[in-house]
Amino acid sequence: MAVDPSLPLGVFDSGLGGLTVVHALSQALPGEDIIYLGDTARVPYGTRSPETVVRYAQGCAAVLVRRGIKALVVACNTASAVSIDVLRAELDLPVLGVVEPGAQAAVQAAEEAQRHQREPVKIGVLGTAGTVRSGAYPRAVAKISTRLEVLAAPAPLLVPLVEEGWLDGDVPELAVARYVEPLIAQGVRVLVLGCTHYPLLRPVIERVAARIAGAPVPVVDSAQATADALLRYVDEERLARHPAPTRPRKLELLVTDLPASFEVVAARFLSERLPAATQIDL
Amino acid sequence: MAVDPSLPLGVFDSGLGGLTVVHALSQALPGEDIIYLGDTARVPYGTRSPETVVRYAQGCAAVLVRRGIKALVVACNTASAVSIDVLRAELDLPVLGVVEPGAQAAVQAAEEAQRHQREPVKIGVLGTAGTVRSGAYPRAVAKISTRLEVLAAPAPLLVPLVEEGWLDGDVPELAVARYVEPLIAQGVRVLVLGCTHYPLLRPVIERVAARIAGAPVPVVDSAQATADALLRYVDEERLARHPAPTRPRKLELLVTDLPASFEVVAARFLSERLPAATQIDL
Repeated sequence: MAVDPSLPLGVFDSGLGGLTVVHALSQALPGEDIIYLGDTARVPYGTRSPETVVRYAQGCAAVLVRRGIKALVVACNTASAVSIDVLRAELDLPVLGVVEPGAQAAVQAAEEAQRHQREPVKIGVLGTAGTVRSGAYPRAVAKISTRLEVLAAPAPLLVPLVEEGWLDGDVPELAVARYVEPLIAQGVRVLVLGCTHYPLLRPVIERVAARIAGAPVPVVDSAQATADALLRYVDEERLARHPAPTRPRKLELLVTDLPASFEVVAARFLSERLPAATQIDL
Repeated sequence: MAVDPSLPLGVFDSGLGGLTVVHALSQALPGEDIIYLGDTARVPYGTRSPETVVRYAQGCAAVLVRRGIKALVVACNTASAVSIDVLRAELDLPVLGVVEPGAQAAVQAAEEAQRHQREPVKIGVLGTAGTVRSGAYPRAVAKISTRLEVLAAPAPLLVPLVEEGWLDGDVPELAVARYVEPLIAQGVRVLVLGCTHYPLLRPVIERVAARIAGAPVPVVDSAQATADALLRYVDEERLARHPAPTRPRKLELLVTDLPASFEVVAARFLSERLPAATQIDL
């Protein structure tokens, strides 16, 4: 796997939620060019069968590889959960998903929380139906620690709440409580945001979880954990762009559909000026 | 357009919500065979651009036409709103959408409601972003009555609420109130369910609208109105299956993806025994 460090990082997601990963990457690796592909014509992946998600993920990866990238980041939790092994087997470049870094960060947070209480701390994962059904987070945690129990709960309503921009108020509070309450009741004291949309609801999730648990509940953002993991990887493998960048990094945005809501929704996830998006066919 | 009355009716929808139309058709035309295609690999259409929805609708229609149908019912409001003219121009068979029958039923309900109050009765349409942005309902109403004002509001959270099975309780009540309140405040006294998912929330919508308006608000179900319109059409055009059916009617179910939640979600929309679904590629 000899890769050219001057190439951009490739990032794909089922839609625009993966721009939260781009945002985290931009802060961790500010000099790196990024090509982002959002499969907006077929979003969401979280409700589809694993076979279909694998097929869609292969298609997205192929587009980015053809354009030339030095590493592939699967920013979608569902695609990471069901397609990462296939992509790693098929592609001759580093492939990073969001599940393993998220699980790693959750284990750290759980071990830290365990120091302050006697009962075993459990990790709770909020995700799409596809991510939860795949069992990817429990498997990833088990590879790091066999003592930590993981409870995953599908929270499908949180994605449309974010897309609708309902980030606080009665409806998100009640919906989050409905998903989080059973997890806390079963001993969960660390929550993983297992979907790229959820970081926008982080304040509500933290508030609701703390109220139900009677104490702060650490919340792990897989997007942030992935950016941190990629930063370490780029350093270790000497993949950083060199010579030192003399121009601002480029962000290229590809989408498979350009709905009227595109700019409003994209701006929710990416806290920087949005580049013009190019529509492609898959 | 010479069609063979022994052929089935073809129905397509972006996903499984169109099974509410199949349910209404089965009651209005109990002897007719039906082939239903749910584009579950690309659902939802309501957030996508018109160009993409037209392309998807053409693909769905082509599959059904190739199998042999005597009429095509576009059960998806978004697809009806943006693709019905294209499909009618391209296909050599009767094409019925859900928007025109829904608008017709809404006009009748509004004229009835107008007899009981002095202020002008307005029609409110709840629909997906794509349906609302298309302006299809206001256009369809204007063709029937130029005096009736139509206010359409996107209500995107109602689809995931139905898919999640949250059909009553705090969250749907509050979400529906948030969508319906501004419509009632602007004089809406008839509501159209402009998405095949919404009939499952009809009790909540009726209750919330009546509470806000201080009086019952008639709620028009486009699925039901479409079944009634097709019944009239089949009668007028002598399209009914003949000789009189001696075997139970057949319902064939095609989908483009078979997620694990398929049976649970499909059963919500179709109140009869679910036939086995065949997965096809589009």
